[in-house]
Amino acid sequence: MTEFSFNQATAKYWPLVDVVKGCAAAGVRHVGLWREPVAEYGLERSVALVQDAGLSVSSLCRGGFFGAPDWLDDNRRALDEAAALGAPALVLVCGGLFDRPLADARARVASGLGALAPHALDLGVTLAVEPMHPMFCADRSVVSTLAGALALCEPFPPEAVGITLDTYHVWWDERVLELIPLAGPRIASFQLADWVIPLPADVLVGRGLPGAGHVDFAPLVDAVLATGYDRPIEVEVFNAELWERPGEEILRDTIAAYRSVIHD
Amino acid sequence: MTEFSFNQATAKYWPLVDVVKGCAAAGVRHVGLWREPVAEYGLERSVALVQDAGLSVSSLCRGGFFGAPDWLDDNRRALDEAAALGAPALVLVCGGLFDRPLADARARVASGLGALAPHALDLGVTLAVEPMHPMFCADRSVVSTLAGALALCEPFPPEAVGITLDTYHVWWDERVLELIPLAGPRIASFQLADWVIPLPADVLVGRGLPGAGHVDFAPLVDAVLATGYDRPIEVEVFNAELWERPGEEILRDTIAAYRSVIHD
Repeated sequence: MTEFSFNQATAKYWPLVDVVKGCAAAGVRHVGLWREPVAEYGLERSVALVQDAGLSVSSLCRGGFFGAPDWLDDNRRALDEAAALGAPALVLVCGGLFDRPLADARARVASGLGALAPHALDLGVTLAVEPMHPMFCADRSVVSTLAGALALCEPFPPEAVGITLDTYHVWWDERVLELIPLAGPRIASFQLADWVIPLPADVLVGRGLPGAGHVDFAPLVDAVLATGYDRPIEVEVFNAELWERPGEEILRDTIAAYRSVIHD
Repeated sequence: MTEFSFNQATAKYWPLVDVVKGCAAAGVRHVGLWREPVAEYGLERSVALVQDAGLSVSSLCRGGFFGAPDWLDDNRRALDEAAALGAPALVLVCGGLFDRPLADARARVASGLGALAPHALDLGVTLAVEPMHPMFCADRSVVSTLAGALALCEPFPPEAVGITLDTYHVWWDERVLELIPLAGPRIASFQLADWVIPLPADVLVGRGLPGAGHVDFAPLVDAVLATGYDRPIEVEVFNAELWERPGEEILRDTIAAYRSVIHD
């Protein structure tokens, strides 16, 4: 049976040490971490922190941004950090156009994965390409659908290159329920967030806790579980109002939201 | 050779009578009209206005919203209005979820098209399903891709049910260039707008004139023209700042934007 994981981005301003303590106190066994707060606390200290609390790290966010000047070194470091934390997957936000035509930008992602795959295999960390909602295509990820992500994975073994599937990004896709079974073991990370409207300006931080919006979770969850997915399921919600609340409250409501859509 | 059409939504606050005069004065031969300003001016008067000015109406916006209570009567009226105006296509914004799961909402669109297709055939007006950007899936259109729109068209002859293809909505789609040739004569209306970021709150009115943003127009335009599309190409831009300007200036800049991406 799959278990809940708390992605720390859901409580953006809760310090890492408090996230870990709060999760342990609430009986949560898994956390999704982000590189910036881990770097701020220190990588080695973070590793010790989560180990001492008995937590596993379900994923590390984020690598990608293949058009950025230092993409290769930065992604190699991100893989190293994921390995140190014991995270099985490095979530990849693959980057937007960076002033290139769309086809070129997508080809750049493919070659970037090729450059990183050997290091990922060496470390035992999967590069987990996250198809992102098409409204982010210009500025955050030119990988917009599960079909597009699967095409990028195809040349590589599933241990090297897989998928992060986030309900927020794919719920609208006519093909997603047909493609999840084909993705099968490629799904390295599964995240939940809900689609709420109206969208805020810049559209990044207007997501909802599961159940608060328009996503029909049951078919997506059933499809992913039917592939044999048995890793933790993260809730990862970017929401400016939620972030203003105390971390303990966010965690409590996130657990309740998870339970409202995942029935053991 | 295809010609420019000015969709009046690009100058939302320019009165219909001034749109028509302005287009005629600028040598523009085609306009895309909307039902609300036509109703405000009066349908018969609008018909006379565009005929007297020697303009053709390239499309009428909009039908659709199949979850709305009066959808059947309202769409029949919209078809009648399109026929009166001589518009070959009624643009369909197919409606969001209306509190139904996504699969149900999409099935509702299919049955709605079936209910309207005979009347469309009788009148010689094509129901032109517009795939809209997935960020509108919950509230404006559950038809999110050209593939989804083509699947809806499939049971009907192209004269009855076709496609409105708007670059703003489909530019990000990995499959769109492969599907445009298959859409072929289904493309009843082709509209241009550009993707500009950051998106404004509610994301409806942040589009750009062609060339102002991130859309790679040439492959899309070439693909549509290669199908034999020979109707006017509309520019339709929802932009709150643009709307504040005088209509003549908007028209002038829209023509220039069109010429920047469509090369005769």
